[in-house]
Amino acid sequence: MLFISQRAKNIAPSPIRKFESLISEIEKKGVKIHKLHIGNPDLTAPKEFFSAIKKYKNKQLAYAPSSGINEHLEAWIKYYSDFGIKLAKENILPTVGGSEAILFAIMAVADTEEEIIIFEPFFSSYKGFATMAGVKLIPIPLNYKKKSKPLSESFIQNKIAKKTKAIIIINPDNPTGKVWNKKELDLILKIAKKNNLFVIADETYREIVFDGKATSLLTKKNAWENVIVVDSISKRFSVPGARIGCVASFNKAIMRAVFKFATMRLSVATLEQIGAIPLLLNSYRYSQKIVAEYKKRRDVVVEILNDIPNIEYSMPQGAFYLIVKLPIKNVDDFIIFLLTKFRYKGATVMVTPMENFYMSENSGLNEIRIAYVLKLAELRKAMRIFKIGLKSYLHERQTTSNK
Amino acid sequence: MLFISQRAKNIAPSPIRKFESLISEIEKKGVKIHKLHIGNPDLTAPKEFFSAIKKYKNKQLAYAPSSGINEHLEAWIKYYSDFGIKLAKENILPTVGGSEAILFAIMAVADTEEEIIIFEPFFSSYKGFATMAGVKLIPIPLNYKKKSKPLSESFIQNKIAKKTKAIIIINPDNPTGKVWNKKELDLILKIAKKNNLFVIADETYREIVFDGKATSLLTKKNAWENVIVVDSISKRFSVPGARIGCVASFNKAIMRAVFKFATMRLSVATLEQIGAIPLLLNSYRYSQKIVAEYKKRRDVVVEILNDIPNIEYSMPQGAFYLIVKLPIKNVDDFIIFLLTKFRYKGATVMVTPMENFYMSENSGLNEIRIAYVLKLAELRKAMRIFKIGLKSYLHERQTTSNK
Repeated sequence: MLFISQRAKNIAPSPIRKFESLISEIEKKGVKIHKLHIGNPDLTAPKEFFSAIKKYKNKQLAYAPSSGINEHLEAWIKYYSDFGIKLAKENILPTVGGSEAILFAIMAVADTEEEIIIFEPFFSSYKGFATMAGVKLIPIPLNYKKKSKPLSESFIQNKIAKKTKAIIIINPDNPTGKVWNKKELDLILKIAKKNNLFVIADETYREIVFDGKATSLLTKKNAWENVIVVDSISKRFSVPGARIGCVASFNKAIMRAVFKFATMRLSVATLEQIGAIPLLLNSYRYSQKIVAEYKKRRDVVVEILNDIPNIEYSMPQGAFYLIVKLPIKNVDDFIIFLLTKFRYKGATVMVTPMENFYMSENSGLNEIRIAYVLKLAELRKAMRIFKIGLKSYLHERQTTSNK
Repeated sequence: MLFISQRAKNIAPSPIRKFESLISEIEKKGVKIHKLHIGNPDLTAPKEFFSAIKKYKNKQLAYAPSSGINEHLEAWIKYYSDFGIKLAKENILPTVGGSEAILFAIMAVADTEEEIIIFEPFFSSYKGFATMAGVKLIPIPLNYKKKSKPLSESFIQNKIAKKTKAIIIINPDNPTGKVWNKKELDLILKIAKKNNLFVIADETYREIVFDGKATSLLTKKNAWENVIVVDSISKRFSVPGARIGCVASFNKAIMRAVFKFATMRLSVATLEQIGAIPLLLNSYRYSQKIVAEYKKRRDVVVEILNDIPNIEYSMPQGAFYLIVKLPIKNVDDFIIFLLTKFRYKGATVMVTPMENFYMSENSGLNEIRIAYVLKLAELRKAMRIFKIGLKSYLHERQTTSNK
C-alpha cells in the first residue's frame, strides 16, 4: 500500500475553493451565481500592464535572474520610496505572488515543529503553507470588533514559548477588514523585540484603507531587524492573475535566506515582471481609484447588512472583506442551500465559510466572509439576494424543525 | 539576537548562480563571457507563445482556477496523448515551472525526516527543495558512464529504509545527459512496487534524446499508482521564462494532495498558461527542431573535448548537458581563474562547478557541467576558449608549484 505524506493529508482544502466543482456544475445549468466568496477583483487591470508586455521585443524568453529583473526591482524600490521607505536591491526579492512570499518568509524564520503566532481569523492559505512547512501556528483572537477588548501584552506574551519564532500580522486584514492602529503595531514590535521574534507583516492590501493613509511596517526603524514584509500587486492594481509579489526586509540574513530559496525555483515569469513595472512606478494613480471604488462598495454592503435581523458584523476599515455572524449553526449547510435549492429570479449568491480561517476548533461555524468584489449595481443585487436567501433558509429550517 | 531557520542556513546557494554577482561585475568591465554554465536555452521562443498572449482581449486579469485554465489543461492532455498517454483532468495539474512541480511532489510523498532516494549527480535544486521540505535525500551513484556498472537491485534495495518514501529519476538526465534505458526503468519500477515507494520522474527534457524516441514513465501501466511525473515546457519549447510546468499522475491520492497545495498558492499566471497552449497542441513541430539543434551542438562539444588531454567525460544521450572531470583539485579555483585572470581576445568562458550536484561529501570537486546552450559558432568559440583556459590554468599552477 502506498501512503501519501501526513502533511498532504492534514492540509485542509481552501475554504474559498472547496465548492468550486459544485459551482461550475450549477453554472453549466445556466444559474447565475453572484460571487462574493473569492477575493478576485472584478475591476479592469491597468491597460499599461498589457501594453508593457506587448512591447516585449526580445525573441527569446530566458529565465529572469533569481533576484528579479533589474528594471522590475527598481520599480519596486521606487514604489516603496513613495511611502518613505528606502530599500536597496538586497532588501527586496520579487516572488510568484504574495503566496510564494508567505511560504518563503515562514521557511526563513521557522523550522519544523517551531511556532508562529497568528491572529485569527486569518487568510486561510497561511494554514496550508504552515502545514507544508511543518510549522505550528498558534492562534490569538483578533480584536477586530468595535466591542473587542484591546490587545493585551500579557496575553500575547503568555503564548510565546521557546519554539516561537515570529508573529504574523495581516494589515489591512483579510478576512475582517481591520486596519491595525499605531498603538497596536508598536505593541507587536515591542513584544517581538523583547522576545527576539520576527514580525511577518502581510501588506497585500496596503493602500486599501478607508480612513487614514497607507503605510508599512518597514517605516518602523527601531524594529528594522525584526520586520519582514510580504507583499503583492494583485489587489492594489487588480491584477491577481499576474502572480507578482515580493518579500522585503532590512534584515540581511533573512534576505540572504529568501534569495537562496528563490534560486531553487530559478525565477519569476519574465513577462509578468515586465507588465508590473508601469504599475509600480505610478502606483498612486492606480490604487487611488481602486480604494475609492471599494469604499463605495463597503458602504453598500453595510447598508444592506444593517437591514438584516439577527446578524453581527463589524465595520471594515480596509481591504475588501468583512465577516458576518449568522443566526445558524453550520454555514456549509446554508451555502449548499444557496447553491442547490435557493433561486431568486434564476440567480443565487455565494459566500465563503469561515471555519478554515481559524486554527481553534469549532470556531467560525456560524460565520461567513463576504468579499465585495462586484460592481456596485451587481453588488447591491447580490446582497439583496443574500438577504432573501438567508431569510428563506431560516424559514425552511423553522418549517422543517416544526414538523 | 534573532536567528533565521536552520533550513535557511543549511540550504546551499545554487551552484549555477553562485558566481552571478562576480559575472555581472566582470561584464560591466566589457569582458565577453561565453556562458556554458546555465541551462538557459538561447533558442528563440516559438512566436505563437507571444501571439497567443497578445490575443488576450479580456480587460480583467483574474486568478486562474487552482487546477489550471480549462483550455490550458486540455492542451496538456492533448500533448500527453501524442505519447499514447490518456490523462483525465484530475490526473494533471499545471504548476509554476517544473520547480514548483518538484516541490509539490516531494511534499506530497514525504514528511519531515523521511527519505527519498536520488541518483547523483543530480540537478542541484532537488537539494534545496528537500532542505526546504525537511526531507532527506539518500544518494546512489548514477551509472552514466560507458564503463559504469549496471544498476544493482540489491545495492538500491540496501538503501531503502522504513523512512524511504520515493525514488527520484531525471530522464533524460540533468547534469549528465544520460537517457535511462527500458531495463533500468523497469528495475526502478519493480523496486518501487516491491517496497511501496513512489517514483518521481522528472521528464523536463523528455523530447531531447539523440537516439531512440521520447517517452514517459506514465506509459508504464503496471506501475500507475507509483509514478508521479514532474514536467516543464521550459526546455522543449525554449521558454524557460514562462514558468509553466505540471505534475501528472494516475494516482488520485497524489493528485488530490497536489491540488490542495495548489489551492494555497491560488493559481499559475494567467497569460503564461494561455501562451503555452499553442506549443502544447503542436509540440512535435517545436521540439523536433530543438532536438536536431542540440544534437549538432553536442557533437561540437564532444569534438573539442576529444582534443583536450587528461580529461574524462561521457557521451550525452539526451538533454543538453554533460559533465567533465578535469585534472585539477578544485574547480571553483579554476572558475575564478577563468572569470578574473584569464582572457582570450578579451573574452572568457563560464562553466558550472559540480560539487553541489552531489549529496556525498567531497564529490564532484574536480568536475564541471557544460550546458551547450549557445549557437554553433559561438559554442565552438566558447569550447576553444575553454580548452585554452584550462591549458593556461594548468600551466600557471605548474609554474606556481615549481617556484
